[in-house]
Amino acid sequence: MRTGIRNGLIITMIEGEAPYKGNILIEDDRIVELGVSVDISEVDQVIEGEGFTAMPGFINAHQHSPMSLLRAFSDDMKLMDWLDRKMLPAEANMTPEDIYWGSQLAMAEMIRSGTTCFADMYIQMGQIAEAVKSVGMRASLTRGLVFLQDDGGRRMSEAIDLVERWSGAADGRITTMIGPHSPYTCPPEPLKETIAYAESRKLPIHIHLAETKEEVVKIRDKYGVTPTEYLAHIGMFDRAHVLLAHAVHLTRKDIRLLHGMRGGIAHNPISNLKLGCGIAPVAECLRQGITVGLGTDGAGSATTLDMFETVRAAAWLQKLDYGDPTILPASHALGMGTLESAKLLCLDHEVGTLEAGKKADLILVDMRKPHLQPVHNIESLLAYAASGSDVDTVMVNGRLLMQGRKLLTINEDELYRQVRQRAERIVKGI
Amino acid sequence: MRTGIRNGLIITMIEGEAPYKGNILIEDDRIVELGVSVDISEVDQVIEGEGFTAMPGFINAHQHSPMSLLRAFSDDMKLMDWLDRKMLPAEANMTPEDIYWGSQLAMAEMIRSGTTCFADMYIQMGQIAEAVKSVGMRASLTRGLVFLQDDGGRRMSEAIDLVERWSGAADGRITTMIGPHSPYTCPPEPLKETIAYAESRKLPIHIHLAETKEEVVKIRDKYGVTPTEYLAHIGMFDRAHVLLAHAVHLTRKDIRLLHGMRGGIAHNPISNLKLGCGIAPVAECLRQGITVGLGTDGAGSATTLDMFETVRAAAWLQKLDYGDPTILPASHALGMGTLESAKLLCLDHEVGTLEAGKKADLILVDMRKPHLQPVHNIESLLAYAASGSDVDTVMVNGRLLMQGRKLLTINEDELYRQVRQRAERIVKGI
Repeated sequence: MRTGIRNGLIITMIEGEAPYKGNILIEDDRIVELGVSVDISEVDQVIEGEGFTAMPGFINAHQHSPMSLLRAFSDDMKLMDWLDRKMLPAEANMTPEDIYWGSQLAMAEMIRSGTTCFADMYIQMGQIAEAVKSVGMRASLTRGLVFLQDDGGRRMSEAIDLVERWSGAADGRITTMIGPHSPYTCPPEPLKETIAYAESRKLPIHIHLAETKEEVVKIRDKYGVTPTEYLAHIGMFDRAHVLLAHAVHLTRKDIRLLHGMRGGIAHNPISNLKLGCGIAPVAECLRQGITVGLGTDGAGSATTLDMFETVRAAAWLQKLDYGDPTILPASHALGMGTLESAKLLCLDHEVGTLEAGKKADLILVDMRKPHLQPVHNIESLLAYAASGSDVDTVMVNGRLLMQGRKLLTINEDELYRQVRQRAERIVKGI
Repeated sequence: MRTGIRNGLIITMIEGEAPYKGNILIEDDRIVELGVSVDISEVDQVIEGEGFTAMPGFINAHQHSPMSLLRAFSDDMKLMDWLDRKMLPAEANMTPEDIYWGSQLAMAEMIRSGTTCFADMYIQMGQIAEAVKSVGMRASLTRGLVFLQDDGGRRMSEAIDLVERWSGAADGRITTMIGPHSPYTCPPEPLKETIAYAESRKLPIHIHLAETKEEVVKIRDKYGVTPTEYLAHIGMFDRAHVLLAHAVHLTRKDIRLLHGMRGGIAHNPISNLKLGCGIAPVAECLRQGITVGLGTDGAGSATTLDMFETVRAAAWLQKLDYGDPTILPASHALGMGTLESAKLLCLDHEVGTLEAGKKADLILVDMRKPHLQPVHNIESLLAYAASGSDVDTVMVNGRLLMQGRKLLTINEDELYRQVRQRAERIVKGI
């Protein structure tokens, strides 16, 4: 199967490459060639790119997809009230089928806003894997591991089961990580076991870090160190590629400890804003050479999964923090939502840029909108003006998941019916 | 002409009124009746509201509409570089027709994102008034007055000309204000003259205040007071209704000075973020009983004119500033974008809520989207998840300006053609 995209404005997101008008040739799941005069005369299908911008799909580096069922259920609340009085009781009511449909709801939103790949940490991951397989997105899946009660062993065996059953599944679209939940839910011994397992299987680790001040206090009271020092002392950064979600509260020493790590930080600006957590020291981490990608966090906290909004929120927060509008310019913020996120997921050899030989994970953004005209600077428009709803076409692994804003692998009517019934049941009486 | 909106989820934005399913009856330019069982069987046209949320249109309380021609022309730059090296040279190249088309471009974006009314301060206001008249929006127009050179008199006579020719024009959709630009561009004597004129004509004043730290320093060096004290000492707050744009840098004493003022603050969170200006003390001003509405500022700085994004950016910033997610909840933030903004424009007796007797300025938001399902809390969804592109229908003064996302009073193809040519010419060589 050969597909040609004709005459789009191409943003490869390869550093230093300027946008240009050209064609993209795709064969099966990969980009074969792209450029100003690439021949697409002999393809099976042509997608007209005139009036569109072609760019890599966004990669959402931190998500809890089934929480879309709980979107707007508990906003404007303190984090612990939100968690204890709303999220935990609701999650206790969720069936495996709820997880499946909640995850599909998140994927419908992600595809419609230009995301092609995501990193997910939750429970019942087999259900999410089935949804990913059926919907056609790319995902890196992680069973969240909390070791505060005596069922840590069961959780760990579920995590191992996910790895063994799903790594490389769905034509390679599914990869897996090991997900010790956070410093404050993982004591040293079980945490060391997860690291040893990750090392033995060459798996990346996905973990929350220093999201709130309360966490910093808790870890200091318990271990006398910062959350980052806690992970460093246990040897996590020496022994595995690590995706650190949040990393809002880092000391200068913490940042030095992260220097040279494999992996990096998934920054979730909207979730951090909405929960009042603070501004992550993104510019400082970038200056230290630490990879920083972007995520939304679950819709239960962030409400939106739109990566365009996430890109600009990231840029805004650094400009605010430094009182300087030149910090984190548009092109860099877009790169964080694409290639830098791909690095966190160990997928940068396959996705994150438009490049011959890479997987065909890309989106077409419709520029014929008043808020995207005139085109003085395409990257500024994408970072600061475009929104998810401007995405017209989404392709993952060479397969169209949306065209003309119509989802091709999800039945939306059925999805909404399922979601309404299930959401109502889950929150009843809470 | 009688219009009925059937079976929509109605959010009146009247304080304390919960959302409900019902009908809205509109006759000519006004809402006649709305409620659960309002009879709309004998109307000229029925608009199906099932699946939609009906709410008041947003009111953008601070705009420079023709700057949409310069959107994304100079992002990620220091404020003074942005102004001196980019904006001022570009504006010097603008013809009156450019102003007309730039303003129409902004209106196309505003309508498509659910804004029905805006406050605009710029030059060549007759051109903007013509565009408002033709497009059908509601607007409060102001000629910006800078008194640093000896052409202040000409500007003032243009301002008076705008007031005399356009106040109450276009079926009452156009109102006017007097717009001394800012404390740092208006010395005491001409500023007093603008206040006297505003007082004599019972006109509101629209002025920038304390947007940057540099302004605070400048005014302190010149007059030994804060920008707010400067205006207070001249007697502005005693003598006129005042719309203060920005008000980022206020001392506690400044806030006490504003207590009891007529008018209030137009908060522009996205512009403040993007230019790295700081966080306006919105929650503190609200606590002091000061009215705070919302604006975007011009697209030249903010890039987007989407009031949904502005609503959530306002809520986010206060949550961040206080480290407390309960500050400025969804319903309050939505109120700032509607009724509170209407108060700033002296239009709250006519618009800002859905209420029998008020003007029919309203929008229908299409909820059949994955990011707006399930509906646990409609106000949270609107504040934190919806975006301008979810608006399906826009009515101003009882007239449909958009339906099914099609603009009914603007020819988009012609608009884009005009905008592209003009934008290219304006920035050539800059």
